[in-house]
Amino acid sequence: MEYNFSNKLASLKPSAIREIFKSLSDPSIISLAAGNPAPESFPVKELAKISADIFENSPVTALQYGLTEGYPPLREAVADRLKNKFSIGRDFDSTVIVTGGQQGIELTCKAFCNEGDTVICENPTFIGALNAFRSNGANTVGVELEDDGINIEKLEETIKNTKNVKLLYLIPTFQNPAGITTSLEKRKKIYEIAKKYRIVVIEDNPYGELRFAGKEIPTIKSMDTEGLVVYCGSFSKILSAGMRVGFMCAPNEIISKAVVAKQVEDVHTNMFFQMLCHRYMTECDLDAHIAGIRDIYRRKCTLMLTELENNMPECVKFTRPEGGLFIWCTLPESIDLGEFVKAAIANKVAVVPGTAFNCDTEAPSNAFRLNYSTPSDEQIVKGVRLLAETVKQFLNK
Amino acid sequence: MEYNFSNKLASLKPSAIREIFKSLSDPSIISLAAGNPAPESFPVKELAKISADIFENSPVTALQYGLTEGYPPLREAVADRLKNKFSIGRDFDSTVIVTGGQQGIELTCKAFCNEGDTVICENPTFIGALNAFRSNGANTVGVELEDDGINIEKLEETIKNTKNVKLLYLIPTFQNPAGITTSLEKRKKIYEIAKKYRIVVIEDNPYGELRFAGKEIPTIKSMDTEGLVVYCGSFSKILSAGMRVGFMCAPNEIISKAVVAKQVEDVHTNMFFQMLCHRYMTECDLDAHIAGIRDIYRRKCTLMLTELENNMPECVKFTRPEGGLFIWCTLPESIDLGEFVKAAIANKVAVVPGTAFNCDTEAPSNAFRLNYSTPSDEQIVKGVRLLAETVKQFLNK
Repeated sequence: MEYNFSNKLASLKPSAIREIFKSLSDPSIISLAAGNPAPESFPVKELAKISADIFENSPVTALQYGLTEGYPPLREAVADRLKNKFSIGRDFDSTVIVTGGQQGIELTCKAFCNEGDTVICENPTFIGALNAFRSNGANTVGVELEDDGINIEKLEETIKNTKNVKLLYLIPTFQNPAGITTSLEKRKKIYEIAKKYRIVVIEDNPYGELRFAGKEIPTIKSMDTEGLVVYCGSFSKILSAGMRVGFMCAPNEIISKAVVAKQVEDVHTNMFFQMLCHRYMTECDLDAHIAGIRDIYRRKCTLMLTELENNMPECVKFTRPEGGLFIWCTLPESIDLGEFVKAAIANKVAVVPGTAFNCDTEAPSNAFRLNYSTPSDEQIVKGVRLLAETVKQFLNK
Repeated sequence: MEYNFSNKLASLKPSAIREIFKSLSDPSIISLAAGNPAPESFPVKELAKISADIFENSPVTALQYGLTEGYPPLREAVADRLKNKFSIGRDFDSTVIVTGGQQGIELTCKAFCNEGDTVICENPTFIGALNAFRSNGANTVGVELEDDGINIEKLEETIKNTKNVKLLYLIPTFQNPAGITTSLEKRKKIYEIAKKYRIVVIEDNPYGELRFAGKEIPTIKSMDTEGLVVYCGSFSKILSAGMRVGFMCAPNEIISKAVVAKQVEDVHTNMFFQMLCHRYMTECDLDAHIAGIRDIYRRKCTLMLTELENNMPECVKFTRPEGGLFIWCTLPESIDLGEFVKAAIANKVAVVPGTAFNCDTEAPSNAFRLNYSTPSDEQIVKGVRLLAETVKQFLNK
């Protein structure tokens, strides 16, 4: 039978990263391609203890249907933490629980975009968000990302010259894939532009708590006096990725649309793990746990940067993140990215080609993403050296 | 700020049922409105034991990112069970794990429907499916449901007279809300019509395993020689609703579109509970557990039917289900449904008005849905008597 698929999905390809992840069944290949939290960052003992207690004392609540908005005590705990620690959330905002930060992004797009509408993004940006926009039939238009955030002039120009711009999607802190953090000055300018053109901003912040160097910078949401910002967060990088628990904080009207959309996607988020998150937040020391994760990533990032400095030919440029999971490497223009990635895999090391993160799927790239949270120290050292050798192969051609 | 929401969500209302569920905070109101499995149907002890073992022996797999398609051992166990027990799944089919049966329905619609396309449904039908179709911008067109399933002549007529029909959505077994089971003869005719007009069928079967009377009837998917049927199932009614684990079995090409769409909605389903399901299926006796649930529902349904027979004025008609969770009651035309539901709540008993299940949201109804799985025996007896009194109030007016 020939199937007549919807236009919005007909051209959508699976995420290159998740496909790479899937194909990494060859254990001899070192993957610097993933975006997984370090396995040693899961607080297994505490979660096991709380789980046993939930099964003992409140199994029915944990196993029964719950509210689409989320388990009320968890909503409250998250809203309090956002408010007290990050000055996020005003009287007109609500916080709801979603099935991972990814769902918050997708629901926001569904709430705002008709087929053919446009979402403006940093270029490069997170492929999962790009595909979420495309799966709703929206166009993705990229604006150049500079060392201190999106190019402000080009952003305003793009808004002026593009029809039906509905959303501006940004990862201001430890951007995926570039590892870049948007400066405070640019955050303020972005907010002013959003206000001027009445465009809703999705501020995606899955890595914000993973700062291991430099100074905290206020989120754009913390400046949101007008109800223009949808803030998406997640427990994936601070408690467990596999449990799929995230949250969004946005103006009530937007939240109520997102909740209706969530109801038809999955009814609600896994109840047991919502209770587990709530108990962990209120009975354990989440901040101390996060401090421990920062230590792990500071060490791993430093190791990878040191290996890059000591081994990589000087023509290869790379970012120096102050947090998050990723380093972004740029090859000299003489090297073809597609050929390079293939040669790297032949040399037993995998990276994600920059083309995967382009808003315009046809646009070229000469960069690739490295991850330091998932590989072991030994794999980081060996992987970077293999990559450096691969570069040298091309330079010597 | 005035928000400019998407057309598809602008008019979408939250599910009336889930809104009723939310408003039932008044403990003095007996709810016959829910659709929750009986709390005593959760195998708490076994799940607790397996959970402790997962935390002890495989915590990293359970807490780390997984594959969008689902945890491979669970996919295999589900595919085997569908094949061996229900003759579901051929060489061209795949089985993937989704976040509750609801997600399978929504993903299938996203894969096939452009904004403005049509999904034909039984009328009345499950509100969660109706809203999933609407949230993708699809129109829902209802075809009359008779005692033995959808009206076949009207179905064919509707297909002929409607533009861009992409999907036919059916709950052939213990239909929600009507409690009706489609006869084998009609199932065969439906399949022939799908084949003739090349229309993909979503066979939603969340209640199929809950038969407590009568004889098993083969699913439409088991007749699917051409790759026309998407089968959606769920663990919600046989293990736990709150964990949000369901599955879909469909032709590979459809599954690969659904997987791309799932990737951008929630990346993958909660890993821990996928492992829990797999371990429960392979280490415990799922069939014996389901037999126990059938016993509970047989008893509860019989109790409710007996109370209806003994107390309800004869002018009120009701279905006699052979399984599932619901009884469908039809009021005499002299009684206004909206007034009746309000009066029932004033009398401290809640039901779901039939209007909530109409494909055409403006169409009238003089029926309501009763649930017997969630209330206690005492609540069933008292609730039905309160309803009967409410009917008598109207008859005596």
